[in-house]
Amino acid sequence: MAKQGKTIRIEPIGTVKNEFENEIPEGYEKLTSEIVIIEEFSEALHRIEENSHIMVLFWMDRVEEKRRKKFRIHPKGRKDLPLMGVLATRTPYRPNPIGVRAVRLIGKEKNVLKVEGLDALNGSPVLDVKPYSIKHDFVENVKVPWWAKHLSSKGE
Amino acid sequence: MAKQGKTIRIEPIGTVKNEFENEIPEGYEKLTSEIVIIEEFSEALHRIEENSHIMVLFWMDRVEEKRRKKFRIHPKGRKDLPLMGVLATRTPYRPNPIGVRAVRLIGKEKNVLKVEGLDALNGSPVLDVKPYSIKHDFVENVKVPWWAKHLSSKGE
Repeated sequence: MAKQGKTIRIEPIGTVKNEFENEIPEGYEKLTSEIVIIEEFSEALHRIEENSHIMVLFWMDRVEEKRRKKFRIHPKGRKDLPLMGVLATRTPYRPNPIGVRAVRLIGKEKNVLKVEGLDALNGSPVLDVKPYSIKHDFVENVKVPWWAKHLSSKGE
Repeated sequence: MAKQGKTIRIEPIGTVKNEFENEIPEGYEKLTSEIVIIEEFSEALHRIEENSHIMVLFWMDRVEEKRRKKFRIHPKGRKDLPLMGVLATRTPYRPNPIGVRAVRLIGKEKNVLKVEGLDALNGSPVLDVKPYSIKHDFVENVKVPWWAKHLSSKGE
């Protein structure tokens, strides 16, 4: 892979704990996960529970290296949907498989966050958590391609 | 720093190009930046321009190592605001300084994306770009702490 500048080395701050071993189950939007933050960082979570939602950044470590090198895909592998660049989709099969997801924060106990709606597999390394921010994350009147609207309306 | 599991090595997919050398200027929400994607990945951007907004993940490389080890701060350094865990704020001074931002996608030319509202400094490594997704990123009726609402209403 061509390099531009330096490799960035990231130490995960925690790990996802849930029942999703090999795939994200249907209806995961209502299922809970724990985000177990390394104890050393407990203090960094101080008062995070005052937020109803957080953004979770995680590393999709089950994505094989070779799956990160294909640059066009049909969304969800469906041949009836247009061929897109991977960076124009939310596929995990992308150069850097970092997942980003807004989830509901149900509770916090010491260094463990309980959240609803996380689409990460059990054991996924967590890179960062942030309070959901209207300014940073919220956009109204977004225009997306027809197939994204289509999948979204079917809950996919 | 205590380690849990493996260090993750990330090769940036591109670089931010704008006029923000040392700080994010006031009114940046209306200023444009370019995201120069490594040419090798041009193909991975195919049809991204069908989206009005994208999420940009970038590495805040100007954050010094020592600033990543303080776990409580006053938001914006303001002593009149409560002491918070860094992970309970959007401060760049966090264990892994990864910025996440929803921005308007103005255009694409080959491997260069033109966006509006990015709060990244010139030269920041870009880790990933994703189309904005109602399902992943959009939350209505978010509850945030009073000080976050206060800053937000003042455009900070």
